[in-house]
Amino acid sequence: MPPFDVSEGDPFGPHNLPYGVFSPAGPAERTVGVRLGDHVLDAGAAARALGSPYAALLARPSLNPLLAAGRTAWSDVRRALTAWVTVPSHREAIAGFLHPLASVTLHLPFEVADYVDFYSSEHHARNVGQIFRPAAEDSLTPNWKHLPIGYHGRSGTVVVSGTDVVRPAGQRKAPADPAPVFGPSVRLDIEAEVGFVVGRPSPMGAPVALGDFRDHVFGLCLLNDWSARDIQAWEYVPLGPFLGKSFATSVSAWITPLDALEDARTAPPARTHPLLPYLDDGADEPGGYDLRISVAVNGHVVSEPPFSTMYWTAAQQLAQMTVNGASLRTGDLYGSGTVSGPAPKQRGSLLELTWNGRDPLELPDGKRTFLEDGDEVTLTAWAPGPAGTRVGLGEVTGRIVAA
Amino acid sequence: MPPFDVSEGDPFGPHNLPYGVFSPAGPAERTVGVRLGDHVLDAGAAARALGSPYAALLARPSLNPLLAAGRTAWSDVRRALTAWVTVPSHREAIAGFLHPLASVTLHLPFEVADYVDFYSSEHHARNVGQIFRPAAEDSLTPNWKHLPIGYHGRSGTVVVSGTDVVRPAGQRKAPADPAPVFGPSVRLDIEAEVGFVVGRPSPMGAPVALGDFRDHVFGLCLLNDWSARDIQAWEYVPLGPFLGKSFATSVSAWITPLDALEDARTAPPARTHPLLPYLDDGADEPGGYDLRISVAVNGHVVSEPPFSTMYWTAAQQLAQMTVNGASLRTGDLYGSGTVSGPAPKQRGSLLELTWNGRDPLELPDGKRTFLEDGDEVTLTAWAPGPAGTRVGLGEVTGRIVAA
Repeated sequence: MPPFDVSEGDPFGPHNLPYGVFSPAGPAERTVGVRLGDHVLDAGAAARALGSPYAALLARPSLNPLLAAGRTAWSDVRRALTAWVTVPSHREAIAGFLHPLASVTLHLPFEVADYVDFYSSEHHARNVGQIFRPAAEDSLTPNWKHLPIGYHGRSGTVVVSGTDVVRPAGQRKAPADPAPVFGPSVRLDIEAEVGFVVGRPSPMGAPVALGDFRDHVFGLCLLNDWSARDIQAWEYVPLGPFLGKSFATSVSAWITPLDALEDARTAPPARTHPLLPYLDDGADEPGGYDLRISVAVNGHVVSEPPFSTMYWTAAQQLAQMTVNGASLRTGDLYGSGTVSGPAPKQRGSLLELTWNGRDPLELPDGKRTFLEDGDEVTLTAWAPGPAGTRVGLGEVTGRIVAA
Repeated sequence: MPPFDVSEGDPFGPHNLPYGVFSPAGPAERTVGVRLGDHVLDAGAAARALGSPYAALLARPSLNPLLAAGRTAWSDVRRALTAWVTVPSHREAIAGFLHPLASVTLHLPFEVADYVDFYSSEHHARNVGQIFRPAAEDSLTPNWKHLPIGYHGRSGTVVVSGTDVVRPAGQRKAPADPAPVFGPSVRLDIEAEVGFVVGRPSPMGAPVALGDFRDHVFGLCLLNDWSARDIQAWEYVPLGPFLGKSFATSVSAWITPLDALEDARTAPPARTHPLLPYLDDGADEPGGYDLRISVAVNGHVVSEPPFSTMYWTAAQQLAQMTVNGASLRTGDLYGSGTVSGPAPKQRGSLLELTWNGRDPLELPDGKRTFLEDGDEVTLTAWAPGPAGTRVGLGEVTGRIVAA
């Protein structure tokens, strides 16, 4: 029996095959890896051993060459990988290129070009509106149902799962304070999100239509958009979030190709407002994804946000992001925005889960309003796969370190 | 007489020496150039011919290696260049590596990592406040005098001077409209700014102190932050500007090193509010720069914004941008925000110059409220140099092309 048998039902079986970048134990270089159960396949070494032409895309220190290669190449490489891990003769040929997951170091899998974050969960947006604008007639801003609201974040501080997050310092000012004070954030929060990774670029002046989404987006990952609520509250009028977000954004080490998520596609919620043609996906294929996310603090699950409840889809977000003629680059990353479902235990931020600190969470190690030093947050997720299987998404984890 | 004699008083004389990236006529590769009068010196070729060790930094297709080399290298290279263009024997040796400016193609001089835009002119912020919030008690938001407000922009659409700008399309909605409409922006504007280019990176978790500004920032350029006011107005609550800005940002082809601007340093305006220690530059060297900007539409000067009136300095902006622990990368670019002086003819945007369209500008070719297709906008600037000279900044120009 080769060393990489995967148990039936493993969410990282041959039906999944997410991509990452790893270094084997010892002083070894970074290279593309494909996760298979509890192992990582050195995909470039396997390609070379089998004489595959895809070695040029896989024996590389980042996913960018594969991302840039485009949809036909993505499908061809996935088909080849599937054969390598399932056809017995190939399995024997590549067995030497598998490394136990626990023995390798995982790296940020691609070079992030621009990072954009959206705000596309209606439940999240309504919760935030009710918390911060309780007197408002509508908990949504007037534009919310007409376009996916987004903003640019800092791509230089996107880090891979497992990276410690230093508690950020900054200015904060409560309404009653006479002047702002400076210090470590006392309202450090999480935002459970899904990140989409752009492969094929687009030129300036050429918007990407809804139907071209899958020609440009390679796959997705889990993303934690750490947020310092006190810093954010003081700085964000009128130009939006800046230092309250830019200190760190964590992504999972594994990028799940959209081709592995065919069985997870689902229709988004019914649209309550008519959409302008460039955003109208009524006649298109289902644009949502049924991803079941779980948020744990120090191993204790505090929330299970359902991605299928997102009002705006990733295809609509891409169409919005480029409708003004903005170009795409290989490695562009965009976050869905905090994923919150309709139920209280489906909220994707502590801001919502504790209703701005009013209702602390009861954890085995004590109460929580916002994150404390030493807290470790882990997002995991799975999606329905073929024939009743589950497709696992790579986890994203991070521990808060004192300022 | 060598072909590159520069007339006395030329703002691009040997006291300036800004850096860019160019291709000579014909199918030639990009390489670092230094502007001298109306010529461009192929700096890498000159370095090789003179046996200079700096060829490794200069015979490159981008400024990034020089930017990353750090302040000591920046000074050493500048000293060497100064000798090459002033010492007769060196002048003879490099004469063959000069190209007429009109014969070369200029490129984006560095790879932009993150792009941040600030909002640091008090006159601009007050004008905008009075235009959009006429009923407000204070035309500034409560945070304005306590921190330099900023946000992230799209680095993938930063383009070099001379690049056409396609009029962006998007959603807009006047308050009285029942629903948003889609189409090309009808309120396309300019923002005259100065951009600062980061050379030396900094790690996550390590804020950059005010006094370390010149260890990290290599130089500056002119920057036009094109803005679609109608798209921006509808989208920007609550997360700030996005598509109203992300379609294009133009920068000059020449990066002026801070070392060329010693005589332009000046104290910023008196501070009206006490500053938190990390922003308090009261005891520091003067943090402002006396740059005289000129804004022309189709060759007609419409404004002359004085950069010396900026409330927040570039050093304060850098301290703010990193105080939460955000890292810097080589190639990070940050804009000052629109430069507007106290006088009406010193305003850096058409929004202010026409008071939101109420007072059209009278140009030789007709009235203007916002930009029309075919309009060409050019920003130029100079700064006081040594011994009564002027240091010219490279122009940034762009023409509006129909959607």
